[in-house]
Amino acid sequence: MKKISILGSTGSIGTQTLDVVAMHPEAFEVEGLAAGSNTKLLLEQVRKFNPRRVSVATKELAEEIKSSLPEGVKLYSGKEGLTEVAAGGEADTVVTALVGSVGLQSTLAALEAGKHIGLANKETLVTAGHLVTELAARKGVKLLPVDSEHSAIFQCLNGENPKDVASITLTASGGSFRDYTRQELENVTVEQALRHPNWSMGAKITIDSATMVNKGLEVIEARWLFDLSYEQVHVLLHPESIIHSYVEFRDSSIVAQLGTPDMRVPIQYALTYPDRWESPAKRLSLSEIGKLTFKEMDFDRFPALRLAFECGRAGGTATTAYNAANEIAVARFLRGEIAFLHIEEIISEVLQRLEIVAYPNLEQIEHCDQTTRELAATL
Amino acid sequence: MKKISILGSTGSIGTQTLDVVAMHPEAFEVEGLAAGSNTKLLLEQVRKFNPRRVSVATKELAEEIKSSLPEGVKLYSGKEGLTEVAAGGEADTVVTALVGSVGLQSTLAALEAGKHIGLANKETLVTAGHLVTELAARKGVKLLPVDSEHSAIFQCLNGENPKDVASITLTASGGSFRDYTRQELENVTVEQALRHPNWSMGAKITIDSATMVNKGLEVIEARWLFDLSYEQVHVLLHPESIIHSYVEFRDSSIVAQLGTPDMRVPIQYALTYPDRWESPAKRLSLSEIGKLTFKEMDFDRFPALRLAFECGRAGGTATTAYNAANEIAVARFLRGEIAFLHIEEIISEVLQRLEIVAYPNLEQIEHCDQTTRELAATL
Repeated sequence: MKKISILGSTGSIGTQTLDVVAMHPEAFEVEGLAAGSNTKLLLEQVRKFNPRRVSVATKELAEEIKSSLPEGVKLYSGKEGLTEVAAGGEADTVVTALVGSVGLQSTLAALEAGKHIGLANKETLVTAGHLVTELAARKGVKLLPVDSEHSAIFQCLNGENPKDVASITLTASGGSFRDYTRQELENVTVEQALRHPNWSMGAKITIDSATMVNKGLEVIEARWLFDLSYEQVHVLLHPESIIHSYVEFRDSSIVAQLGTPDMRVPIQYALTYPDRWESPAKRLSLSEIGKLTFKEMDFDRFPALRLAFECGRAGGTATTAYNAANEIAVARFLRGEIAFLHIEEIISEVLQRLEIVAYPNLEQIEHCDQTTRELAATL
Repeated sequence: MKKISILGSTGSIGTQTLDVVAMHPEAFEVEGLAAGSNTKLLLEQVRKFNPRRVSVATKELAEEIKSSLPEGVKLYSGKEGLTEVAAGGEADTVVTALVGSVGLQSTLAALEAGKHIGLANKETLVTAGHLVTELAARKGVKLLPVDSEHSAIFQCLNGENPKDVASITLTASGGSFRDYTRQELENVTVEQALRHPNWSMGAKITIDSATMVNKGLEVIEARWLFDLSYEQVHVLLHPESIIHSYVEFRDSSIVAQLGTPDMRVPIQYALTYPDRWESPAKRLSLSEIGKLTFKEMDFDRFPALRLAFECGRAGGTATTAYNAANEIAVARFLRGEIAFLHIEEIISEVLQRLEIVAYPNLEQIEHCDQTTRELAATL
């Protein structure tokens, strides 16, 4: 029995992780679930999966659900609750399916407690890649990617020597607005932005796909996950999202991972690695699809992606700021406060104003994160 | 220093293997070269690579070149010569780049002598797959595929558990006549047939690509090389030949190997496995290519491929006969004796007339091979 805890159990990745768990009841046990404020769904999950530990966003929410929990379930709340679910208990693997840099502290706590990480919270590596990867190496625990692109790269590296990698290429669908010009982007609505062509995902990541910030975060995540330079990380437009990503080796051979867009496949792989188990995901038929298309990435059309590379190369707290500014900007866009194109303007503006700390510790990262958020809220 | 012998050194794969050797003079040494009758090229190769053993097709040819060989080079000829180069000397790896089932005995001799095999001679496995794979397993030596499709599958299986394989798919360009109807095929010339759209290969394999017999041989080769059932081996039309082949795992994840069509890449991988070395092969740019297309295989358009599956399932000497009939038929087509479509008719006719031996030994295989050739010459 593999014991699993999930941070962000009621979100898109969280619920799909529980789908995978439910498919293999003989193999998985749920140790802990941490949710935000969707207590209705959380209680359903508790009844179905019998976790030993549960956490919600606030004390008030904890009070609300206290009486509905089965006997013996430990209830926590807030940041401390997140850490209790992440690091406490007997979980072998913690799936970090939170959205945003809020996942950092609990991920570090899980690593410190020697848990393997099913990493769906890319902001963790973007915000503090050097701290997270150093701690994982020191503790000898695995960072198992859940993102489809990083899972693809991870699978393509199976049995290969990292020194033979020439480069990796992350594919990008182009998001909801891939065929829009810059001008057409000026007046797009929240509703339009939330219609992703290929993947069913949460609101924040769907907006991030449309701005290409998501690919920017993935580039930075990949740099840390696979210990590459930014010169070794490429992005390719591939509207069909069938080739999830690929590795080019120094003998010019390319190994790619393909499949229908179904997050349950990379989630399951992170939980069963190095084994592969049966999956109900629809099988890919290339003859049915007929063709796959590719286009060079246009950094003028998607300036937020160029910014990600620039922040990555700048290093230190630059990527922390990139992420925090984007989180605030996306929240403001989703609330209808700002226009779509203003998201990237906020990120750009923040990066011009903030001073970068080259080798930040956790405190400096949190300070940068906080300062950025305050600034981004005013721009 | 890795010591290499090449059977068929003056052919397409043979010369490209020596290209790879020449690129890494610090790592490879040529132990032996066996050629047919192209003594001019063989002598050039001898001067450049200083092999210790050399063999040619006949005693007469050996007499001819004797005086042109440097002091100390051992000279052999005929079938015995092939075996001397394959099994004698200090080679670690023998590249079997002969065309046709003539490669069988020398490959078995090399295996018996404990040499790893760089397998480019697919007819060996088609003719006697059970004998070759059993002997390789017993001797603990590796069968390293050189064919681009099988090298692709081999690479995709790196670090994977064979029990997790759901199926493999060999891609097929469709050959010189992929856009011709059956009717248009009736009057095609030898010259037309020799124009392969993507790969530069020898004459026999180019004709085999046009009839799809080559893919049939590859299907049978793959069945033995990767220990699969014929239900697990698929063929997909992919005109661009960029995806060289792929593996579907039971979690529905597909891992594919891609590259520009350059045989030096799989040849080098067979020689450096499990390492990868730099290669001068042109790097693949998917954005430059723009699109990849796929079409279901049409077994009515390419009946020779259907025959290959049928022979494979029938087992025993059926695949021996399939291959031998094809060798004779292609030779007759290349000599202008028969029409293009008559190749598959000969194969079909032979299979209807011959009796199949279920578990043949080497003698029975050679008998079937001989009988088939005699019959195919008369049809």
